Amino acid sequence: MRDVAVLGIGQTPVAEHWDSSLRDLAYRALQAALDDARVPVPQMLFVGNMLSGALASQENVGALIADYAGLRGMEAFKIEAACASGAAAARMAWMAVAGGLCDIAVALGVEKMTDGKAEQATAALAYAADAEYEGEHGLSFVALNALMMQRYMHEYGYRHSDFAGFAINSHANATTNPNAMFPSAITAEQFERARPVAAPITLLDSSGIGDGAAAAVFVPLDLATRSPHPVVRVLASASATDTVALHDRRDPLFLEAAHVSAQRAYAMSGTTAEDMDFFELHDAFTIMSALSLEASGYAPRGHGVGMAIDGEITRQGRLPICTLGGLKARGHPVGATGVYQIVEAVQQLRGEAGPNQLAGARLGMAQNIGGSGANVITHILERRN
Amino acid sequence: MRDVAVLGIGQTPVAEHWDSSLRDLAYRALQAALDDARVPVPQMLFVGNMLSGALASQENVGALIADYAGLRGMEAFKIEAACASGAAAARMAWMAVAGGLCDIAVALGVEKMTDGKAEQATAALAYAADAEYEGEHGLSFVALNALMMQRYMHEYGYRHSDFAGFAINSHANATTNPNAMFPSAITAEQFERARPVAAPITLLDSSGIGDGAAAAVFVPLDLATRSPHPVVRVLASASATDTVALHDRRDPLFLEAAHVSAQRAYAMSGTTAEDMDFFELHDAFTIMSALSLEASGYAPRGHGVGMAIDGEITRQGRLPICTLGGLKARGHPVGATGVYQIVEAVQQLRGEAGPNQLAGARLGMAQNIGGSGANVITHILERRN
Repeated sequence: MRDVAVLGIGQTPVAEHWDSSLRDLAYRALQAALDDARVPVPQMLFVGNMLSGALASQENVGALIADYAGLRGMEAFKIEAACASGAAAARMAWMAVAGGLCDIAVALGVEKMTDGKAEQATAALAYAADAEYEGEHGLSFVALNALMMQRYMHEYGYRHSDFAGFAINSHANATTNPNAMFPSAITAEQFERARPVAAPITLLDSSGIGDGAAAAVFVPLDLATRSPHPVVRVLASASATDTVALHDRRDPLFLEAAHVSAQRAYAMSGTTAEDMDFFELHDAFTIMSALSLEASGYAPRGHGVGMAIDGEITRQGRLPICTLGGLKARGHPVGATGVYQIVEAVQQLRGEAGPNQLAGARLGMAQNIGGSGANVITHILERRN
Repeated sequence: MRDVAVLGIGQTPVAEHWDSSLRDLAYRALQAALDDARVPVPQMLFVGNMLSGALASQENVGALIADYAGLRGMEAFKIEAACASGAAAARMAWMAVAGGLCDIAVALGVEKMTDGKAEQATAALAYAADAEYEGEHGLSFVALNALMMQRYMHEYGYRHSDFAGFAINSHANATTNPNAMFPSAITAEQFERARPVAAPITLLDSSGIGDGAAAAVFVPLDLATRSPHPVVRVLASASATDTVALHDRRDPLFLEAAHVSAQRAYAMSGTTAEDMDFFELHDAFTIMSALSLEASGYAPRGHGVGMAIDGEITRQGRLPICTLGGLKARGHPVGATGVYQIVEAVQQLRGEAGPNQLAGARLGMAQNIGGSGANVITHILERRN
């Protein structure tokens, strides 16, 4: 298989885009990525999206977006893996280029969640859970995460306030990201006073509902070396699944699919967790940050929260995470999130992250999680020059 | 890229499977295909499905099915391209093997459409159209096809009864297919007396709503040569898109994406339309059969219907189509259909089509259409020994 690079990136701000439709948002990110890559016509388009049917009565969004973007005729599909749809689309684009099927493939993540009532979005998000065994009993997606958080606190003896560092870090990083939905700093006091959503999860443990689109252009590495940008190579793309239903897991506090996909990514790239300069992880809820750090090899079992308590996850820490605000504060338009993570990793590796720039970042990891850990895709990216 | 073969196939009957859930159906087809292929553990699973969210409140079906089938941990995604989701999944599985990412990839199409009211399925099928410009005005999917049929009859001077041959052929072929949903022969008189759905389309122009699953196992060609089955090679896989909205087409009576994907498939395989021993086409409505034949090079513009009138499409004709009943009579569980087409093509090429067997079939084409022509995927398969 061929070495692959990300040649271009594009994104819209995450916001309540009531004046833009799904295809508008998609077009803006796609065109920005093509402009950035300086390639006019890609050959394949993979659209990461979870909820276009449920919230916009629209499927077939691959063809829809290709046409609206002036690329009528181009091969285009929608890829869905719940909240990991974005990274799944990126993986397909990587696969198409690595396997030699085409030279220019675009991964586009897009989600439009705020047009209807918030209850509709909440109900549709529960499609990421097991409809017959979880959804049927009224378990919303936040309720599933609340069960995990409650159990984690019980098993390891943490208090809710111990998780504050994750939310504080994401919000602090978002303050200087022009594409962030919630660019306001928060304090530990605000974290503790936040309204409950599903105990112990509060509003400030949770990512919000937003609209957004992000795109990345994948090409063979040798084609990228002619780019005016620093070259960002895809060192690894790896994926694994677990049960959709939380009760079926061998251990509800270990994200096995995250572990397997991270291990595969390390093996594929010849790297380890210690080598990473940053980690764009899936902080849909603060508990997911802790579990991701543990499953991916950055902290022992039960010690993921300790990294937040000790400040190791800030931009000045041992392992900066969510460097442009993460799902919590940049925003979490579900099917788009995985592509936002890759776009932001490229920003860091190119040195284009502005006030959020990590000095000398050369190796970064992005991990996108679908469901409560059912579908996990990990990418490792490296700056080449 | 590597040569690829279809090593195993599996399917459930298309029916109203009220005693089986989506995952049950999927498992049955998947296990049958793995048994047929005599491989225990595939490496990647691509699920073609359009309506799991709308009709079963379930997304993330890739992980869901992998787990339920005893393949927990395996990489799995859902691929969506409206009614072409099945062939899109097959194309991804082909791409994964051809590109060298893995050696055993499964394409599984599954759809569960009959659990709710028929109106729900009809409303959800309209997601294949342009929600903002077609669905918004109340255009159902059958109404869009009715517009195409009306215009075709007007432009070329056909009567409704001229289309009878398509439905009669599909039903005749279904009578001896144990997996068919409507295995009853129909006559020209019944065709003409059928109830209208959206004029000029009647019940017997239309494929029905059904549940079903089909699966195909893709492997490198050299691995397939050890199979006890005749070896079926994937000579071509090709895809193209068009506008989702019918009114945006350059010509509403020419399926440009079908034309482009067929031409790409012919070029890739070094074949022409004349070489095909049969054609599993997308007869969701009789008008689509006519337009597919024309776009794919089997008949000049306006002459597709003539092939039905002249009996060229029967199992004894020049170009047998829908040899096991097609969408019309085998059934059309939308996201599964494209995989059923490939499974049936393999049955013909292996000589396993029973009473429906075409003597000496060595080269066949399967074409799956999403929307009213927006997303079209064409596969050409060849018997090697």
